[in-house]
Amino acid sequence: MSAFSRLTPLAVSLPSTVPFVGPEAIERNRGLKVEARIGANESGFGPAPSVLLAMRDAAAETWMYSDPENFELKEALAIHHGVARGNIAIGSGVDGLLGEIARLIVEPGTPVVTSFGGYPTFNYHVNGFGGRLVTTPYVDDHEDLDGLLDLVNRENAPLVYFANPDNPMGSWWEASEVVAFARALPETCLLILDEAYCETAPASAVPAIDALIGQPNILRMRTFSKAYGLAGARVGYAIGTLGNVEAFDKIRNHFGMARISVAGALAALKDQAYLHEVVGKISAARERISVIARENGLSPLPSATNFVTIDCHRDGAYARAIVDGLMEHGVFIRMPGVAPLNRCIRVSVGPDDKLDLFEQALPKVLKAIG
Amino acid sequence: MSAFSRLTPLAVSLPSTVPFVGPEAIERNRGLKVEARIGANESGFGPAPSVLLAMRDAAAETWMYSDPENFELKEALAIHHGVARGNIAIGSGVDGLLGEIARLIVEPGTPVVTSFGGYPTFNYHVNGFGGRLVTTPYVDDHEDLDGLLDLVNRENAPLVYFANPDNPMGSWWEASEVVAFARALPETCLLILDEAYCETAPASAVPAIDALIGQPNILRMRTFSKAYGLAGARVGYAIGTLGNVEAFDKIRNHFGMARISVAGALAALKDQAYLHEVVGKISAARERISVIARENGLSPLPSATNFVTIDCHRDGAYARAIVDGLMEHGVFIRMPGVAPLNRCIRVSVGPDDKLDLFEQALPKVLKAIG
Repeated sequence: MSAFSRLTPLAVSLPSTVPFVGPEAIERNRGLKVEARIGANESGFGPAPSVLLAMRDAAAETWMYSDPENFELKEALAIHHGVARGNIAIGSGVDGLLGEIARLIVEPGTPVVTSFGGYPTFNYHVNGFGGRLVTTPYVDDHEDLDGLLDLVNRENAPLVYFANPDNPMGSWWEASEVVAFARALPETCLLILDEAYCETAPASAVPAIDALIGQPNILRMRTFSKAYGLAGARVGYAIGTLGNVEAFDKIRNHFGMARISVAGALAALKDQAYLHEVVGKISAARERISVIARENGLSPLPSATNFVTIDCHRDGAYARAIVDGLMEHGVFIRMPGVAPLNRCIRVSVGPDDKLDLFEQALPKVLKAIG
Repeated sequence: MSAFSRLTPLAVSLPSTVPFVGPEAIERNRGLKVEARIGANESGFGPAPSVLLAMRDAAAETWMYSDPENFELKEALAIHHGVARGNIAIGSGVDGLLGEIARLIVEPGTPVVTSFGGYPTFNYHVNGFGGRLVTTPYVDDHEDLDGLLDLVNRENAPLVYFANPDNPMGSWWEASEVVAFARALPETCLLILDEAYCETAPASAVPAIDALIGQPNILRMRTFSKAYGLAGARVGYAIGTLGNVEAFDKIRNHFGMARISVAGALAALKDQAYLHEVVGKISAARERISVIARENGLSPLPSATNFVTIDCHRDGAYARAIVDGLMEHGVFIRMPGVAPLNRCIRVSVGPDDKLDLFEQALPKVLKAIG
């Protein structure tokens, strides 16, 4: 064996894995070319032209480390959200921040609550610190707030994850229900409220920042990867109390942010006109994906995200056959990982020429697999 | 207190800190403007023009996550070094990789060996996992290989850090000595051989890749931040055995790399002509910094890095006064953190117009502080 002999027992016990297989790996492994990349919940509409310009300009500064305190971005976000700079933690996407939160709270055996079939990367990080995941199933394709709360209390769990809007189902709860859930949690349990998709949700689904800002047991997660179209830049942030934000400074990789990425995020935040415009495009693309699904006898679920989850009315093997079949036509999509969610496929928004490929391929695939 | 009440005992015990205060923070806190940024061991010569073009082109693709397997970059690096793709782990700079290695090996109380005054970010990560740092002093401004080896054996330490060339002193050992040290280590101790500055070192100071590739207790760290001029991109890599490289996949943030950064690294690796040219410039800038130091009665130490450490012949307070005084003139430099290394200041290379500012300011500062 070529591995060092003294990894920690926890490290030895962990598998070498990847939470999501990338489309590039599928291309390599299957010898196929992705023509429509509508599977990773990226935004095929991309970032604003102003953002691309800002990033191109910033290239000349890439010989310098980015400010380890992320002062300018924190300040811009604080103004944007009407909070203090000290309420904002910056990280390498929501994924990076989830790993840091897990590290701050999870030890071997720590119970951590989430939904069965929820975001795999959160589970990956909890497992990575030896946590014990306890899950409650989705109810009617929604995360079950009562079920999550019951589990938190039963397990005396210090950590619960809840995405609103939800990935992979696209469903959401109204803000009043989210706030009621957050306030019902014991103060001994930290809520990760993952709002990666909040910009594409109905306004009524997103609690006011004020509503939860004072609670030391809540961290709200945001990202530039979705509506802002900057998945490849890796810029996410958490909104929380001063004390919780400072906790990230205990463990984070201070010089971990790419300078061009930070410049892109700053420019994206400034261009709210583009955000407004692209959210309209995302909404229209969701509608078009839904129409295509219905025309093929499938049932799109309501979505507040940048993707549409489509009920294919059969089992996981059938949905998998659709995913694999579409890839044969160069159309990359994904699907939820566990039953009963895996009766569905998940199609991300994109420009019309990409949805055209989906529209053309789907009936062929359905016919072929019968 | 506004912090969540159930952080792990380890997390509670850690300070909120930053291993290096950034020049931006110095500007903000002191109300001064940095005119010559020659303190963070960045390369003021920047990356190749071909790299800037590649990064600008890649901006249009930043709506996509980067390949989580980093296949293309791994392949290019493997070819460059004559190893297998499986021998290369990619991370968010050497700093990011150091944090991952610490996580794989260090538990509360684990003894970890390094030099007293060595790279602070390594210490930060070891402390972050509760490790117990045991150190040996520099000898004649070199890391003490015999001292490190003795400590490893005395403590039965599973981890030792050694930078060649060294930061903050700029000193180095010949390859034969490095290899002898690496082979003398017990196989129960992993050597982090940090070669961030290897491109600017004499060829005789860098062991052949072949010489150490088979040893499961060695990871060699490389970066695009120094000679390649891409500090702001955050791309580092480790060269090691297949088993050790796979260990990173147990814990890393798979979607953590910025897509433009990876494109920049690929382009940088392709442009070896530029690397050759810029290494010449770095060497000339080292020489000029050394001349300026001597003209002011200070003693530059030999350097194999992109900075020159300068002995100011007095104590840490004196060196600190020089650092602070230069900043009053807009010249940002740094200094080692502990005695006796802190009798020195550390000046990074840069273009002539930046070194002009250093040359002009230094005699004024020395005169002012007496």
